Amino acid sequence: MDKPRIVIIGAGFGGILTAKYLAKKDVEVVLIDRNNFHLFQPLLYQLSTSVLSIEEIAYPTRAFFRKYKNVFFMLAHVQGFDFVNKEVITPYKRVKYDYLVIAAGATTNYFNMPELSYHTYGMKTLREAIHIRNHVLHMFERAERESDPAIRQRMLTFVCVGGGPTGVEEAGALSELIFIAMKNEYHRLQNDTPRIILIEAGHTILATMPPKLQRRTRQVLKKKRVEVMLNSQVINCDKNSLTLKDGTIIATNTVIWAAGVRAVPLMEQTGYPLDRSGRLIITKTLQVPTNPNVFAIGDCAHFEQNGYPLPTVAPVATQQAIICAKNIMHSIKGEKLQNFIYHDLGSMATIGCGQAVLCKGNFTMSGFPAWLAWMGVHLLRLSGFHTNITVALKWFWNLFSGIRLGRVITNIPDNRE
Amino acid sequence: MDKPRIVIIGAGFGGILTAKYLAKKDVEVVLIDRNNFHLFQPLLYQLSTSVLSIEEIAYPTRAFFRKYKNVFFMLAHVQGFDFVNKEVITPYKRVKYDYLVIAAGATTNYFNMPELSYHTYGMKTLREAIHIRNHVLHMFERAERESDPAIRQRMLTFVCVGGGPTGVEEAGALSELIFIAMKNEYHRLQNDTPRIILIEAGHTILATMPPKLQRRTRQVLKKKRVEVMLNSQVINCDKNSLTLKDGTIIATNTVIWAAGVRAVPLMEQTGYPLDRSGRLIITKTLQVPTNPNVFAIGDCAHFEQNGYPLPTVAPVATQQAIICAKNIMHSIKGEKLQNFIYHDLGSMATIGCGQAVLCKGNFTMSGFPAWLAWMGVHLLRLSGFHTNITVALKWFWNLFSGIRLGRVITNIPDNRE
Repeated sequence: MDKPRIVIIGAGFGGILTAKYLAKKDVEVVLIDRNNFHLFQPLLYQLSTSVLSIEEIAYPTRAFFRKYKNVFFMLAHVQGFDFVNKEVITPYKRVKYDYLVIAAGATTNYFNMPELSYHTYGMKTLREAIHIRNHVLHMFERAERESDPAIRQRMLTFVCVGGGPTGVEEAGALSELIFIAMKNEYHRLQNDTPRIILIEAGHTILATMPPKLQRRTRQVLKKKRVEVMLNSQVINCDKNSLTLKDGTIIATNTVIWAAGVRAVPLMEQTGYPLDRSGRLIITKTLQVPTNPNVFAIGDCAHFEQNGYPLPTVAPVATQQAIICAKNIMHSIKGEKLQNFIYHDLGSMATIGCGQAVLCKGNFTMSGFPAWLAWMGVHLLRLSGFHTNITVALKWFWNLFSGIRLGRVITNIPDNRE
Repeated sequence: MDKPRIVIIGAGFGGILTAKYLAKKDVEVVLIDRNNFHLFQPLLYQLSTSVLSIEEIAYPTRAFFRKYKNVFFMLAHVQGFDFVNKEVITPYKRVKYDYLVIAAGATTNYFNMPELSYHTYGMKTLREAIHIRNHVLHMFERAERESDPAIRQRMLTFVCVGGGPTGVEEAGALSELIFIAMKNEYHRLQNDTPRIILIEAGHTILATMPPKLQRRTRQVLKKKRVEVMLNSQVINCDKNSLTLKDGTIIATNTVIWAAGVRAVPLMEQTGYPLDRSGRLIITKTLQVPTNPNVFAIGDCAHFEQNGYPLPTVAPVATQQAIICAKNIMHSIKGEKLQNFIYHDLGSMATIGCGQAVLCKGNFTMSGFPAWLAWMGVHLLRLSGFHTNITVALKWFWNLFSGIRLGRVITNIPDNRE
């Protein structure tokens, strides 16, 4: 008899961990992803601001499974499903499964404003982060050549939308890139003042954290010359400006959109009930209610606990991955499936180098000790021992010298620019 | 009176060093390059084979001149010259000069076979190296999905053309990437045998080195499973094959062209006499014979010594840079200009990790000691102390573990591939 075959869609935190667990069992695993690497998304903002390099946050997926001959990786963009015949549809072939794990992740949520997707920069993929890096550096090069001061100011105005951890981290890192690393390098821009603006629709940044940490974060951002605009809803955006609901127009060529995520569009191909963020609604055992052979975990799954859906963060995906893998083995053996319970590990955000806030329940921490804790947690989770060393080196180097070597424009949009 | 203004075209080894020297003088320097970084070209093959990362071989040009307010960088692709009005023409504006230094470098030489430029990969720019990396990794992904064994073999056949140091180094590094780092990761390709072929038109590889080192290199390449084809001239290339003069057709999707360089096409815009590699012919004082305000150095200049033109290597550019900068200062002060004399520092090539050959005059060295020497020389020349540490770490790590983390496909050519 053939081994049971488990197909996993997505090589993010959830997919990789599910595959790692199942690799040691007597099953066949097919892991499908549209990229050949596992992306460490929480540090994507550091790539976009020239702190880390591509190799430090993107790890070749196949390297995880070198020893496991029962794990097959496939580079493909999944197009749909045939649940009747138990097949996943890819451009090359249909892949048969006995059990399917959908761990396809999330994408940027533009809240049905397509013009935003044209004129803003998302922060979810490696390519998007590289685009931001190229674009920000390029804006400085163009500004230095520009004689009109108004256009120069527009080129030097950088807007992050979304006051959650991603927006805060991106704004803080941008501030250091611009006011520390690049200061003194643009000799013709010494009389210009770049602006970094963080826009949040709600009444506070880091809404899920205690007020104390919100205040602390505001203070640090202020020091870093990041202007925070609260209660400000973006309603439009074009090539050269951003419009808020109250009529304010901000002249800018750079809008980084970190205001929300939704499940990848592939979820719509399932035909199963989704929540309003496009996530698959799943049972306590992480299965699709009407199809016990299909599991869903992580950012593309909607799991309710205490009346609320779980947040789209890495610890949810990794904790679910273990239960998902166990439940598949239970199911193969005809055993009873286990219910998933999420254990909140707290949340954290860095605001540039040497500054962070973190909380778990009533416990809070901020400043340099929090940054050290943040660093430890992220180093432990990065893939590859060698990466840990170079990343730690870079962080300390950055802390002491402010130098960022990754300021390399790999793609100049137009030959004439 | 205004300070004399020196415009330097090109931020390679020659241009950077000229600018660094002049930065300390009472002059104004404008450094123009089409990229915002200085590229350490001798290690480009290590980027293309996933050993090093972009940041390690590309250093932001402006970072060299942070302290020197009299040095202005300009990101622009120079389009031509107006020698009468002493201006350099860029897409944005004309840049006035009192002295001009042309250090614009070289590009791939396809020897008037345009079809080669469409179907082969050059090895001169950062983007070309990234293309090679993406493409080689992608070929393995595609081969694993391919059911036709002949197509699979074609996808797994990698050809380097040119038996000089670049071709030898690329072939050696590819061998390690494929036979060490990627071995055991493509579980469905365990019965396929990738081929690496090094093609040279002449009767030996490393023609400028002593026969002893040529033999040694052949031995090492053989161990690394690189097939060397001598006396083999490429006459054509299409999407799926390469044709040699003797009629041999090699089925391959990957031809890396390292068979020769010529000066960048910009040299033709000067209207001054060029040699047959498109290089500007210059005087003993590094000037254009008919225009004493225009200097040329490095790969785009033709300087004869003992009846032969100097080779297109970094030490020529760096030695010329110093004399060029000094001569400009002499000229400003009305002093006599100095003749340039090249001091040969020998040559070296690595053949993968832990193996190198080097010679200077009658002195030769090979194997691991030569590799250590090669490593030392390259580390000393890399920009940024921090880079030295991470690069040294990676080289030793690679030597002992064979692991290469940079195997990240950043650009998949077609969504369906």
